[in-house]
Amino acid sequence: MCIKPERNITLLFYTVEIQHIDTLLHLATVATATTATTNSISLNQYHKVPALLPHVANLLPHQRVAQSFLIPDNLNEQLIKRQEAAIQTKSGKESGLPDEVHVYHSLYPLEEKAGKFFGHPSWLYKAICRTNGKPYVMVRIEGFRLVNEHAMTMVKEWKKIKHANIISIKEAFTTRAFGDSSLIFIYDYHPCSITLFEAYFTPQAQALLHARLQATGGTALPVPETTLWSFITQIASALKTIHAAGLSARTIDIGKVIMTSKNRLRLSCCGILDVLQYETASQKAPYYQQEDLLTFGKLIVSLACNSLQSFLNLPQSFEYISTFYSADLKNVVFYLLSKPSPLKTIDEVIRMIGPRLLHEVNSTQYYTDTLESNLGFELENSRLVRLLSKFGFINERPEFSDDPRWSETGDRYVIKLFREYLFHQVNEVGVPVIDMAHVISCLNKLDAGVDEKILLTSRDDETSIIVSYKEIKDCINSAFNDLYSSFHTNNNKTK
Amino acid sequence: MCIKPERNITLLFYTVEIQHIDTLLHLATVATATTATTNSISLNQYHKVPALLPHVANLLPHQRVAQSFLIPDNLNEQLIKRQEAAIQTKSGKESGLPDEVHVYHSLYPLEEKAGKFFGHPSWLYKAICRTNGKPYVMVRIEGFRLVNEHAMTMVKEWKKIKHANIISIKEAFTTRAFGDSSLIFIYDYHPCSITLFEAYFTPQAQALLHARLQATGGTALPVPETTLWSFITQIASALKTIHAAGLSARTIDIGKVIMTSKNRLRLSCCGILDVLQYETASQKAPYYQQEDLLTFGKLIVSLACNSLQSFLNLPQSFEYISTFYSADLKNVVFYLLSKPSPLKTIDEVIRMIGPRLLHEVNSTQYYTDTLESNLGFELENSRLVRLLSKFGFINERPEFSDDPRWSETGDRYVIKLFREYLFHQVNEVGVPVIDMAHVISCLNKLDAGVDEKILLTSRDDETSIIVSYKEIKDCINSAFNDLYSSFHTNNNKTK
Repeated sequence: MCIKPERNITLLFYTVEIQHIDTLLHLATVATATTATTNSISLNQYHKVPALLPHVANLLPHQRVAQSFLIPDNLNEQLIKRQEAAIQTKSGKESGLPDEVHVYHSLYPLEEKAGKFFGHPSWLYKAICRTNGKPYVMVRIEGFRLVNEHAMTMVKEWKKIKHANIISIKEAFTTRAFGDSSLIFIYDYHPCSITLFEAYFTPQAQALLHARLQATGGTALPVPETTLWSFITQIASALKTIHAAGLSARTIDIGKVIMTSKNRLRLSCCGILDVLQYETASQKAPYYQQEDLLTFGKLIVSLACNSLQSFLNLPQSFEYISTFYSADLKNVVFYLLSKPSPLKTIDEVIRMIGPRLLHEVNSTQYYTDTLESNLGFELENSRLVRLLSKFGFINERPEFSDDPRWSETGDRYVIKLFREYLFHQVNEVGVPVIDMAHVISCLNKLDAGVDEKILLTSRDDETSIIVSYKEIKDCINSAFNDLYSSFHTNNNKTK
Repeated sequence: MCIKPERNITLLFYTVEIQHIDTLLHLATVATATTATTNSISLNQYHKVPALLPHVANLLPHQRVAQSFLIPDNLNEQLIKRQEAAIQTKSGKESGLPDEVHVYHSLYPLEEKAGKFFGHPSWLYKAICRTNGKPYVMVRIEGFRLVNEHAMTMVKEWKKIKHANIISIKEAFTTRAFGDSSLIFIYDYHPCSITLFEAYFTPQAQALLHARLQATGGTALPVPETTLWSFITQIASALKTIHAAGLSARTIDIGKVIMTSKNRLRLSCCGILDVLQYETASQKAPYYQQEDLLTFGKLIVSLACNSLQSFLNLPQSFEYISTFYSADLKNVVFYLLSKPSPLKTIDEVIRMIGPRLLHEVNSTQYYTDTLESNLGFELENSRLVRLLSKFGFINERPEFSDDPRWSETGDRYVIKLFREYLFHQVNEVGVPVIDMAHVISCLNKLDAGVDEKILLTSRDDETSIIVSYKEIKDCINSAFNDLYSSFHTNNNKTK
């Protein structure tokens, strides 16, 4: 994307907002993390492979801002935190929760106290599914007696909806495991997410936002135009799929739209109201679809005006939006808040935002480039773990201590010498040298089996061998295969 | 996305095409790979963490087809191949190429013989930049004498263009390093890419395509409608950015549009013609922009009709497109091929394809989900490499052989016993047990320093200790820190 100089001001807004969201998502991951992360240091700096290809790495700062719209500053750290959050558990006794609910175990409360879901007390847990071992979110509507069993057919309809901006429902059921009659909804779990409310309207978020805005001299917008367009695009895309299936979201709410990673929105809790209010839901689908468009409009007004009360005084809010945002954006908000009519549809909204979708495609593609590049790089480590484990299996095995092949005259002695070369280097005055770069570089050459020759010398200088990485590799593989086949043969015998 | 049953036929087309592209990209990666990949086995199956979160893993087969539009079947394998291709080298003597050209070294020919670039003999190399160590593509126009130095200002304009569907130019210069006067263009390098020609029109691609089409009973289309829309979207998005900057692509050609990963297109060689034909380029920008739209249209017709001659008989081609593709698609092609006029613009094209952009956004977001999930998982390995290397540094050091702390009564003895427990397990009849799952699980617990206690016994059954992972972790860290600080202290002294 070509950024012209006159867009400097917009870019300034941009930077402010990115830092603010990055900080909040970072706090979300920190809050849920258990294990220390001091050990999570990346090995990137030691590898021989250029970590990032130029199309990912070589961006000027102002280009980086525009293209890192979806890329967190601390991508790897956030991903590790998400993995950690996913495996976090508490014993049932500690949390006072049942050990098992249907096929779900290891319940872990995601909120400290009960919430309210349209008047019903509700709870949010993470739980592991016994049948596939994966974590899910369990929404529990407390003390709800399902009168009409047909209501569950709505869940079947929702299960067909798969969309990148909608959290998928897995199933719903009733249970007495909590000691009452609860209605349970199971959704895909997105670790370390925050709601739009948490991203923009908590005292903490507002304080961060104000601090950042002040740093720019108070001229920046809380939610820059580009971000707002991205949010509009994502929600509209989700609504199009939902409405096309004859359903309605009914959860376009600042507390129900969640950010699962930087600037990536997803509608949550879809389908719950359809079950809770089944009698009216199926008849009034067109009405609720119109409601979706109205609540969508209100959400955007709240974000644009940085106030949850903004839609109480719409004329003033419109004036604010007209002043600080483009006419196109104002028109979309106008349309969303216009009087419901059969002609007012999400398709028309999509048509209005058409060209803005390009930004969405472009920034998402840049994110995939970054991810592809990082992943390609990290895959190297998977090979090294395998190689280092081979060393572990064959080195210093008590079984081999009397084997002449491992003695100083045997053919396996080279493995011992290479281990010394790899890990036990000393400098000219005999001080141990700890050099990860040396280790990684040697392991990579060993893994590739290159022809490069090295001189291996025993510590007492009695033995010296010149040998290629390829020969060492063959030797290690042969030793490992001997060990493995002895294990395999005997293992089959004893079966 | 909700896939209704009546779309089965489209999905069938889809599957056919995906396999075909996957195969070709796979062949491209195999052709350029050097090191064996038998060692690239993933360790996924051994880790404790659920490798994929449910929103990525739990898709029904027909959903997977729609959402894996951009996701290669063998993602990790392809990424490893790309890394390998990026570091591939040949010595200058072997290839007969200069050792260094400007700041670029390690030239590696990407094509076996010279090509033609609008009448000029041209060569394609991969080269490493000395200043940042990253690989680039070097396009060499042989025997070209640059008359007007101002021509290079065009490169400056192109350097400002950063777009996910355009290969970025880094610089251009003239050189005598090849023994002639050559004009050199440096672009970002995308390993293992194929051109659209290679993807669809080589005898190999056609054979693959026909075999797959026959398997479906001959009812499928060579390029399904969804794929064609995606290609149109990507090229249109690139052209919008180029035209908005007052430039023209002039390379919308089946041999110049390349696929850098599955279904992901990028315009290549942008800017070269602007330098080669500088005199006319700057004056005729509007004319060339109209040309872009026409060549864009021809490209789509060729793909839709699966024939490079199709645009020679446009009425027949239009009839074919009308029969097999939607009216919307036909209209876009019609528009692109309509008579040039100042009112015919890329903006109008974008407006026409508006709603189709949603598919692009959705499939790209699904791809980011998969990548995020895989990356989060692979990051675990980075920690394990670090941990295993620590073992390597401290275990069996000759320096420690007489240290009482490492003897059977010393506090470091637990590390020895844990190593035995980790790698040197034997079964009840004394046969070595090779169990990677055991190793990875123990290492993960060790890394997290959990409170779980294990019984460590020496091989001779003389010593038994009950110890927690946390205690073992502390012990290993203390041993490593001792070693590291001795290295560090002495290292500083000797400096």
